Amino acid sequence: MENLLQQVKKGEVTIDEAVEKLRHLPYEDLGFARIDHHRQLRQGFPEVIYCPGKTNEQIVKIFSALAAKGNNVLATRAEEDTFEAIAQTGKFPAARYEKQARAIVLKQNELSPSKTVLPIVTAGTADLPVAYEAKVTAEIMGQRTELISDVGVAGLHRLLAHVPKLQEANVIIVIAGMEGALASVVGGLVSCPVIAVPTSVGYGASFEGLSALLTMLNSCSSGVTVVNIDNGFSAAVTATLINKKIETRTD
Amino acid sequence: MENLLQQVKKGEVTIDEAVEKLRHLPYEDLGFARIDHHRQLRQGFPEVIYCPGKTNEQIVKIFSALAAKGNNVLATRAEEDTFEAIAQTGKFPAARYEKQARAIVLKQNELSPSKTVLPIVTAGTADLPVAYEAKVTAEIMGQRTELISDVGVAGLHRLLAHVPKLQEANVIIVIAGMEGALASVVGGLVSCPVIAVPTSVGYGASFEGLSALLTMLNSCSSGVTVVNIDNGFSAAVTATLINKKIETRTD
Amino acid sequence: MENLLQQVKKGEVTIDEAVEKLRHLPYEDLGFARIDHHRQLRQGFPEVIYCPGKTNEQIVKIFSALAAKGNNVLATRAEEDTFEAIAQTGKFPAARYEKQARAIVLKQNELSPSKTVLPIVTAGTADLPVAYEAKVTAEIMGQRTELISDVGVAGLHRLLAHVPKLQEANVIIVIAGMEGALASVVGGLVSCPVIAVPTSVGYGASFEGLSALLTMLNSCSSGVTVVNIDNGFSAAVTATLINKKIETRTD
Amino acid sequence: MENLLQQVKKGEVTIDEAVEKLRHLPYEDLGFARIDHHRQLRQGFPEVIYCPGKTNEQIVKIFSALAAKGNNVLATRAEEDTFEAIAQTGKFPAARYEKQARAIVLKQNELSPSKTVLPIVTAGTADLPVAYEAKVTAEIMGQRTELISDVGVAGLHRLLAHVPKLQEANVIIVIAGMEGALASVVGGLVSCPVIAVPTSVGYGASFEGLSALLTMLNSCSSGVTVVNIDNGFSAAVTATLINKKIETRTD
Amino acid sequence: MENLLQQVKKGEVTIDEAVEKLRHLPYEDLGFARIDHHRQLRQGFPEVIYCPGKTNEQIVKIFSALAAKGNNVLATRAEEDTFEAIAQTGKFPAARYEKQARAIVLKQNELSPSKTVLPIVTAGTADLPVAYEAKVTAEIMGQRTELISDVGVAGLHRLLAHVPKLQEANVIIVIAGMEGALASVVGGLVSCPVIAVPTSVGYGASFEGLSALLTMLNSCSSGVTVVNIDNGFSAAVTATLINKKIETRTD
Amino acid sequence: MENLLQQVKKGEVTIDEAVEKLRHLPYEDLGFARIDHHRQLRQGFPEVIYCPGKTNEQIVKIFSALAAKGNNVLATRAEEDTFEAIAQTGKFPAARYEKQARAIVLKQNELSPSKTVLPIVTAGTADLPVAYEAKVTAEIMGQRTELISDVGVAGLHRLLAHVPKLQEANVIIVIAGMEGALASVVGGLVSCPVIAVPTSVGYGASFEGLSALLTMLNSCSSGVTVVNIDNGFSAAVTATLINKKIETRTD
Amino acid sequence: MENLLQQVKKGEVTIDEAVEKLRHLPYEDLGFARIDHHRQLRQGFPEVIYCPGKTNEQIVKIFSALAAKGNNVLATRAEEDTFEAIAQTGKFPAARYEKQARAIVLKQNELSPSKTVLPIVTAGTADLPVAYEAKVTAEIMGQRTELISDVGVAGLHRLLAHVPKLQEANVIIVIAGMEGALASVVGGLVSCPVIAVPTSVGYGASFEGLSALLTMLNSCSSGVTVVNIDNGFSAAVTATLINKKIETRTD
Amino acid sequence: MENLLQQVKKGEVTIDEAVEKLRHLPYEDLGFARIDHHRQLRQGFPEVIYCPGKTNEQIVKIFSALAAKGNNVLATRAEEDTFEAIAQTGKFPAARYEKQARAIVLKQNELSPSKTVLPIVTAGTADLPVAYEAKVTAEIMGQRTELISDVGVAGLHRLLAHVPKLQEANVIIVIAGMEGALASVVGGLVSCPVIAVPTSVGYGASFEGLSALLTMLNSCSSGVTVVNIDNGFSAAVTATLINKKIETRTD
Repeated sequence: MENLLQQVKKGEVTIDEAVEKLRHLPYEDLGFARIDHHRQLRQGFPEVIYCPGKTNEQIVKIFSALAAKGNNVLATRAEEDTFEAIAQTGKFPAARYEKQARAIVLKQNELSPSKTVLPIVTAGTADLPVAYEAKVTAEIMGQRTELISDVGVAGLHRLLAHVPKLQEANVIIVIAGMEGALASVVGGLVSCPVIAVPTSVGYGASFEGLSALLTMLNSCSSGVTVVNIDNGFSAAVTATLINKKIETRTD
Repeated sequence: MENLLQQVKKGEVTIDEAVEKLRHLPYEDLGFARIDHHRQLRQGFPEVIYCPGKTNEQIVKIFSALAAKGNNVLATRAEEDTFEAIAQTGKFPAARYEKQARAIVLKQNELSPSKTVLPIVTAGTADLPVAYEAKVTAEIMGQRTELISDVGVAGLHRLLAHVPKLQEANVIIVIAGMEGALASVVGGLVSCPVIAVPTSVGYGASFEGLSALLTMLNSCSSGVTVVNIDNGFSAAVTATLINKKIETRTD
Repeated sequence: MENLLQQVKKGEVTIDEAVEKLRHLPYEDLGFARIDHHRQLRQGFPEVIYCPGKTNEQIVKIFSALAAKGNNVLATRAEEDTFEAIAQTGKFPAARYEKQARAIVLKQNELSPSKTVLPIVTAGTADLPVAYEAKVTAEIMGQRTELISDVGVAGLHRLLAHVPKLQEANVIIVIAGMEGALASVVGGLVSCPVIAVPTSVGYGASFEGLSALLTMLNSCSSGVTVVNIDNGFSAAVTATLINKKIETRTD
Repeated sequence: MENLLQQVKKGEVTIDEAVEKLRHLPYEDLGFARIDHHRQLRQGFPEVIYCPGKTNEQIVKIFSALAAKGNNVLATRAEEDTFEAIAQTGKFPAARYEKQARAIVLKQNELSPSKTVLPIVTAGTADLPVAYEAKVTAEIMGQRTELISDVGVAGLHRLLAHVPKLQEANVIIVIAGMEGALASVVGGLVSCPVIAVPTSVGYGASFEGLSALLTMLNSCSSGVTVVNIDNGFSAAVTATLINKKIETRTD
Repeated sequence: MENLLQQVKKGEVTIDEAVEKLRHLPYEDLGFARIDHHRQLRQGFPEVIYCPGKTNEQIVKIFSALAAKGNNVLATRAEEDTFEAIAQTGKFPAARYEKQARAIVLKQNELSPSKTVLPIVTAGTADLPVAYEAKVTAEIMGQRTELISDVGVAGLHRLLAHVPKLQEANVIIVIAGMEGALASVVGGLVSCPVIAVPTSVGYGASFEGLSALLTMLNSCSSGVTVVNIDNGFSAAVTATLINKKIETRTD
Repeated sequence: MENLLQQVKKGEVTIDEAVEKLRHLPYEDLGFARIDHHRQLRQGFPEVIYCPGKTNEQIVKIFSALAAKGNNVLATRAEEDTFEAIAQTGKFPAARYEKQARAIVLKQNELSPSKTVLPIVTAGTADLPVAYEAKVTAEIMGQRTELISDVGVAGLHRLLAHVPKLQEANVIIVIAGMEGALASVVGGLVSCPVIAVPTSVGYGASFEGLSALLTMLNSCSSGVTVVNIDNGFSAAVTATLINKKIETRTD
Repeated sequence: MENLLQQVKKGEVTIDEAVEKLRHLPYEDLGFARIDHHRQLRQGFPEVIYCPGKTNEQIVKIFSALAAKGNNVLATRAEEDTFEAIAQTGKFPAARYEKQARAIVLKQNELSPSKTVLPIVTAGTADLPVAYEAKVTAEIMGQRTELISDVGVAGLHRLLAHVPKLQEANVIIVIAGMEGALASVVGGLVSCPVIAVPTSVGYGASFEGLSALLTMLNSCSSGVTVVNIDNGFSAAVTATLINKKIETRTD
Repeated sequence: MENLLQQVKKGEVTIDEAVEKLRHLPYEDLGFARIDHHRQLRQGFPEVIYCPGKTNEQIVKIFSALAAKGNNVLATRAEEDTFEAIAQTGKFPAARYEKQARAIVLKQNELSPSKTVLPIVTAGTADLPVAYEAKVTAEIMGQRTELISDVGVAGLHRLLAHVPKLQEANVIIVIAGMEGALASVVGGLVSCPVIAVPTSVGYGASFEGLSALLTMLNSCSSGVTVVNIDNGFSAAVTATLINKKIETRTD
């Protein structure tokens, strides 16, 4: 919107054009949803549908509107029957369901793969669904990833074997439930930012991820920042943005 | 009490003696407090006064009643002016104030020192007051200790240097605030019980120790048990009881 | 790992051997899980699979990898269909499902039974599943147990009848939901450590075990330490470690 | 008010009288406070001023308005300087400050003492201020009391010695902080109602009385009801109401 | 137990008899449960089984053991299939299932009905299951009740019409979810104790009864005490105990 | 009730009439529910049934009693089978089920439509069920509405396009889950009251609407007030009351 | 900002003017604060300074910048020494400190008083500071108010006497701490919106206003909306906005 | 440590050297603290002392040990008297106290300034202390910053004026208390990572920063990650690490 105002000031756009653009261009109104097609341009990532709370019918409509522009489309936290509803339209033969990640992926633009590899580290096997959500998200944005799972702090030697690899990364995603201590330990071993994802894995006093969340927020390792419980998607977007900034730097 | 019933059954004690003993012996009534002298016998540790919420006048009376029996006496969470009130009675020249531990110590019986040494490990310097409370408590029960401070998980190598020593212990006390991850890491490196003490060190989302408490309760390292926030006293009592059980085993 | 460094220093292991061992030996990589076979040696207990959040397929693979080494294997919080998936492999005829404990047990090494008996005390009948988890865990480690159930504080005489037995123990597990007061009462009657397990038994203001957890953490009986809500497993491991330390003491 | 409607219906009161009474009689308007003089008649207890949040100036005015009717007056949670402000008026020579109870007491009507004695039981010495608030409140209502302090569950024999006395009571007040287990234990030993008062005594996971509150609410002893943290006043009012109902029964 | 000690002191019971009684009489050991038959004598109410967390098999065994003594038996929070399991034994033709109260009732002793009537007041229709639990509980103890439902504070006139009836009661049960304000309003209108039962009725910020619970604990009406969320049982026991004390007073 | 007292004072109503009216008129007693027919008169809105916690049988009876007076009837949070139970009575052919709003609507009086339009703004598509509850509620009270959905703060331009329309409103309803920031942003752009409805949309640290609730309560935009999580009904009633006050002003 | 775009579209403002205005006009940059002078125009109320967290030096600068435009200025939650710092500048002789409201008031424009009177109702005397904040806020916006204090639900007749007056209002502010039940009771007696302000008055389970906040959010009286704990300011702004909408309606 | 193992493997370091280095080099033991000098090398930032919970005496010792190595030193959350204690040693004439940031800064190495500028954006004036902590931290690491304060969402135009500048940044720090909505709004306007810092600014339902924390964690703007409440330090370290990665990329 501000860009528009700048264009107006420079005379590149007339008033009427500007006002019309401002009101009508930025999104497509489906009645129950407003599709924001130019976000892909702005942030370099696919349009994303967060599925919970939406009916399959709504999701199919949003998915169709997004796909019609030729963008990559990612639907997160998707049930398998939602994918079937999309498949039954027959319009998206390239769409696939990533069961472990609970995601629907439609790749219409192949992005050139990143130079760097993003490590996605999990404390336990039960954290894998969140890790796969992160993996799928990063990859649809062109970010290569490496999954290092089940290296929680109760068996420190499992983690230490991967330290050289971690020290080469620009940014690392650490995913852990229960006590969530892995983020601090990784943060103390590397010199790059660590994005910590608490998971709802655990029981009793884990309070559905609250324990891991608090642990990560209180990390005394510098460079650790935190996203919502189970939010592999947001961690992957942030990590990919950082890597893109590094790889696309133009001096 | 049950012992008494057994003595009655064996005929070692008459009925009237038993009933009288049961009602009158086990404690001394100060009006506002009931002093339980035979606990020292039962659990092998000093009578302890938890000071908060008691007036100096009350503490002096309880302290005097306890000391009169010749037991060791420990007053925890004591303000310096409470010690001065005790000192001013002139009756306990051997009593001393341990400032770092916020404790008043009166040693009237010298216990033979334990064979084993109890490691008391802290994540940071700010956890020291809790560590000193644990140290003073263990030592008045005859338990030798070694304080290993400031070895939090953000600098793992500081901890690893102490692993051989930790692996020799029968039981370890780990004290940490903020994210409290140290207990899990230590628990994963040793094969003895770890008693974890969360501290109120931290700010914001540490919620005055809640974060460290939850972390420790959710530890995925086996053998970790937890006491109340800042409760160095209880950790030390438990650790000493375990060591005593080991050292006093009679086959 | 430190042991390895010590061996290196003493010249018992060459550099190349050490580095290789450090990287490759300590665990077996199944892709989604890393199996830590030498933990059994280190802590003297079976490899354990915590089942929630893992697929049956994953559990079968981990179980197989663990069992292949000849260790005892324990799978906790296991659904009956998980046991059936394991049974259908036909490879573990000795594996059995402990329904009350929700555990799968595979005993491949018979450990000599402990001299001491570990009392497992519950406040109510509804606490039994947690007690059985503790019992199965202790027994696969060779620890003999005695279950004393339904002796909650609302009927104190039921508890008092067991006091002589409790006073002979080296360590006691106390399991209680609702108000969780039993741990304090037991702690005041004995002179050994008490490991308190809050349970999620209750409703309303029990907040799924939070009430019992807080009660136990605030116990004014010395020697009481606490594990996570419903964590019978960890209580049993800790208690068994303590008993092993006592029984294996070598002067 | 309903009584008034009944009087109207019976013709004992005219309409105009009733409406006027309803609007003007029931309270006296001080501008910032409305004094409800007939509550003493209705519930048989003194007018009470809860002091926190009121200025000394406001308290003096309310106190004066209440005292002017000849009722007994009780000001709870009163600072000593509030009492001095009242004393300086020179109008209430009979008013006294109960320091331990933090209460100002003005007895203008001597009530005949109750036949029964109300036991007020505390777990620890630090619970005494709440116990004294209860004691002062009961006594200004004519209820005789007996304070049994420092009989917490960590030393059960101290409590058991008082059981015969407790079993004779119509209703008992139990006051405890920290884990608050005393109410359940007492409730299991007697057959009368127990009014449980959690206190803010404790630290860490006591969360300023929350732990004791939850314990008491989850009591599995029947007949235990609970009041707000530190609310000795309300417990005493309720207990006295029960005793009055019993003693004043007219068949 | 104390009674026993008194009998011993008076010579009415020999030592051996006392010790044996103390150990064996007070309860019957079913292995998983300990049945406390003399509680009915002690508190004048039926043995009660709280069903959640117990298997039908366990409940049938406990029910049978209790019924065998000829006592009245009440099983609360019982599913209908539990009742069917009991019915299928064919041993308790008099047992009935109270669906609205979710209770199984076996009346073997007809108690003479109380003189007084206990008002059970609810704020809304959705609070009825808790009210019926209270009603069934009171009635099996011989307490007559009157249910006054749906008189919440949003329509105050519905409550005011019942004030004369409420003012005649010795004690009142008030049951409310959502904001739980009804207890305070009733408490301000009467001069007898009010037992407040918060319910889990509501949504969002009711946090499953927490809101109503806090409201009731903070009541500024004197004489209001509180039980656990949805605990109609305990409210009824307490109210009945109070009424019994009043009706059975012997001068 | 007060109106009645005023009528009595003016002599328009006799005593006996007043007392009788006060007791019998204001509601109809169905046993389990008390129907308050004159509320429609008092507040100008339909009688409303909040369905959760009521049986279909109860709802049908209440619905029938309300409808019998000729009022409009609204049943909120209604399951489809509840509507079917009502439909099967055959008595309310005009009743319809609003699936998106989870409401049963029976319009028996057509209210003249409001002059003003009430904007109902949602942050996301998943907030729609709450928005539809608000819409149905407002419309049965004669309030015209406009739904503006999916204009959350992550894409600010979608909201800005609607600002002129929002600035014309007398009052606005803003509905948002997750971080709930939309209410503050709207509140800063307009000069009318904003009624904020937090929703339970979200996961993890949204804690079922708590996050959005706290955000809205802490809004630094003046004029924002808040209702319970997911309470579209109450927001609509309040907004409609405000609009009615404006439109019905009589100078 | 949108208005500006509309003016641009209509040709009333040139592009360059618009862009310049948009960037520079709307606020004045003090370095640490940005002053928004046109808010007064937009919402018809004074610029307001929320004092906590700002230094006196900062407040004096902001106050001066605001006052320089001739607007009315209100500083809330102001300490007395902040007022003195403002007074010492000698520039604002008309500024006064409202001690009970903790507010600094500078009236430079006399607004014509509202026709309607806004009732501000409090449950207790301790709620007065919040009520005075509301009163001062409303009055500087030209809204006449009437304070009705100390009419909490424990003495319902005190409230009922004011019902006729309340029923005449367009909107009512209800302020209550502790159980906060007053808002529901008032909401049930009137047919206008009620703005409920929970206060931090109370102790123990009031959790510094949380109890009253939850009560008010769960109100089953329609038309009740809620603001932050102790936020008399926001309640007054909202109520005044509603009254202004009504009084300034132009047909 | 791993680096060391790699050097050993390559033969660059002998065994004895490695083991000695591992044990003795990495830190300096002050008894109560372990100084980790090589962290500066590892992460490129100064040694940092978090002051709360440490005595001035301890801080002076740690500060001296750190400064002796010639590194830059930063002491955060430092009271002014701590700075005076450092100043009185006379050893650090270059040390200065940054009052607004509550930090002690000793710059011994001048780092070349970053090419990019880091925007530090605050919602209100009261958030400035946290912003200054971030600013001081970034600057001692060579990161240039620009502080944009008081642009909260209640006056959106203040923020929009800075959008062009924000869109040029590689990473942005957003600091907000109360409802914390600013991070989501900024996150939706830019295509770089946003590091969100909730602050404890606010009152009532802000629960000392919890509200802002939850808001930020639930942000529906991608690319937003969160640190602990008031943790300007960690946000600045992370942002600077990201910028360094970008500026130091070597292809």
